Amino acid sequence: MHVYQRDQIEAALSGADVVAAIEAGFRAMSRGEAVIPPVGEMVFDRPPGEVHIKYGYLRGDDFYLVKVASGFYENPQRGLPSSSGLMLLFRRETGQLAAVLNDEGFLTDLRTAAAGAVAAKLLAPKRVDRIGVLGTGTQARLQLRMLAEVTTCREVLVWGRDPAKAAAYRHDLEPMGFRVEIADTTAEVATQSDLIVTTTPSHAPLIYADQLKPGTHITAVGADTPGKRELAPEVLARADLVAGDRLSQCITRGEIAHGLRTGCVCLDDCVELGDLLLGSQPGRPSPRAITVADLTGVAVQDIQIAKLAYRRLREREGVRHD
Amino acid sequence: MHVYQRDQIEAALSGADVVAAIEAGFRAMSRGEAVIPPVGEMVFDRPPGEVHIKYGYLRGDDFYLVKVASGFYENPQRGLPSSSGLMLLFRRETGQLAAVLNDEGFLTDLRTAAAGAVAAKLLAPKRVDRIGVLGTGTQARLQLRMLAEVTTCREVLVWGRDPAKAAAYRHDLEPMGFRVEIADTTAEVATQSDLIVTTTPSHAPLIYADQLKPGTHITAVGADTPGKRELAPEVLARADLVAGDRLSQCITRGEIAHGLRTGCVCLDDCVELGDLLLGSQPGRPSPRAITVADLTGVAVQDIQIAKLAYRRLREREGVRHD
Repeated sequence: MHVYQRDQIEAALSGADVVAAIEAGFRAMSRGEAVIPPVGEMVFDRPPGEVHIKYGYLRGDDFYLVKVASGFYENPQRGLPSSSGLMLLFRRETGQLAAVLNDEGFLTDLRTAAAGAVAAKLLAPKRVDRIGVLGTGTQARLQLRMLAEVTTCREVLVWGRDPAKAAAYRHDLEPMGFRVEIADTTAEVATQSDLIVTTTPSHAPLIYADQLKPGTHITAVGADTPGKRELAPEVLARADLVAGDRLSQCITRGEIAHGLRTGCVCLDDCVELGDLLLGSQPGRPSPRAITVADLTGVAVQDIQIAKLAYRRLREREGVRHD
Repeated sequence: MHVYQRDQIEAALSGADVVAAIEAGFRAMSRGEAVIPPVGEMVFDRPPGEVHIKYGYLRGDDFYLVKVASGFYENPQRGLPSSSGLMLLFRRETGQLAAVLNDEGFLTDLRTAAAGAVAAKLLAPKRVDRIGVLGTGTQARLQLRMLAEVTTCREVLVWGRDPAKAAAYRHDLEPMGFRVEIADTTAEVATQSDLIVTTTPSHAPLIYADQLKPGTHITAVGADTPGKRELAPEVLARADLVAGDRLSQCITRGEIAHGLRTGCVCLDDCVELGDLLLGSQPGRPSPRAITVADLTGVAVQDIQIAKLAYRRLREREGVRHD
């Protein structure tokens, strides 16, 4: 049994092809090879917090995964991050614990951002002149870093509720090769970008259908629980293609769930990212099409990134096959 | 975050009052203070295995627990134990991981045995001349060791399918102060004991109603999944008192579940160990009554033993409050 801490995990994943690992996971899931039971949940109050337990495996694979992730929203008042988590990797043939990846939520952040890159690779227009970002937090940063692997565009328009955080975002991302402008309104981002990533915890729409240019692709990442949403439902009605990471999960959470409730989208018209990757569903219909990818976060991403991290951690220790 | 291995955990719990910790858990559960969501499950074949994820907390407590336990039944062919597991203890106010207890299933074994001692303390006849044990494995051993804390009887009659294992059981337990006889049949144990503990993985009845002496108490431990059973249903019909560790769980697994299906017992006539401990239900009705305790294994036991282990591990490190 090996125990790895966040800094070791971050170092081991530096330069890794995380996008390819996540793509392989989506493909396996859409082929029906992923076994992902319902998410376990505990909800606390005083102080408020929530814990999710995600677990599963790919048929024929060497490992199964159990992930415990938490959000305790008053933690910053105590000088602690609100999110935390760890992943446990077990050998599928014996149940032996292979590794404790005490990533403190880093792997979840990274696999979420990698799914954004997968969505952009599949659905963004050929030519992206400007990336629009809503939100200025960890995910807004990681999304941009992962997008750099799938697009050559480095022009960014960012909006955040807090101008100081938007300024910090620009300050931190510009040294990585991006040119970052700060938008005063979400409408500026919606009307002036070709590839939009929304990463806020909003419970009300931030982007409306009539704001979007033809050819725009939106990846919606923020709405990971049933109450959250970032897109007006009409965005889904106007979209020529709506993709989800896992449609059976998108029924209950995320933008597609809101679209289904308001009648703005039918599940039959939605496609899964894995099906696009497998080529069993057509991708972007035309250069002027509007496309939306709704990312709710799936355990198969956790499975894939945990295996990748473990393999690279072991390689750094000089162990190739384990 | 602290990581403890099995040998450290065993050493830290040496001399601990595990029975009191488990009693406190049962009491809290029967008072409605335990939050225990449904068990997560993964089932594998080729090689066959199963994984259970149990989690929960006591309201107002400092920690929540996530336990991952597995059984891979071909492991002994590889020189590995079939059962494995670990417990994760998190701080309830922040979600921070306090400890990884890599107990490899030891804590589950111990808390199960401690529940047997709780049941015997509540329901065994005042005078026990002989303890009968079905099974010769880890649980058959631990049950006897925990019973030594609640009864002065040291006369034991043991039955196992494999005579060599029964002999090993006698060889290992006699140095601990027990006098162990080996029975050729389960009927011998059933007819000649006052306090019977059944710890086998049997799927067919081993003990029948007409075999039992007046005043006998049976603690049934083996039937922890829906298919397993050790008692003929008529045993429950003949019993004057039937207790379960958690009645809402006993509906679907264990001896009570079989009794409900065959109409040999009504749920309204069953009591919970916690209610007996709280005094809200009367215990053993008379010296000649036959009583049964059905132990299916409850997450509140895991919560209690994990906290106890962590506290004692920290005390050994010189930390009193943590």
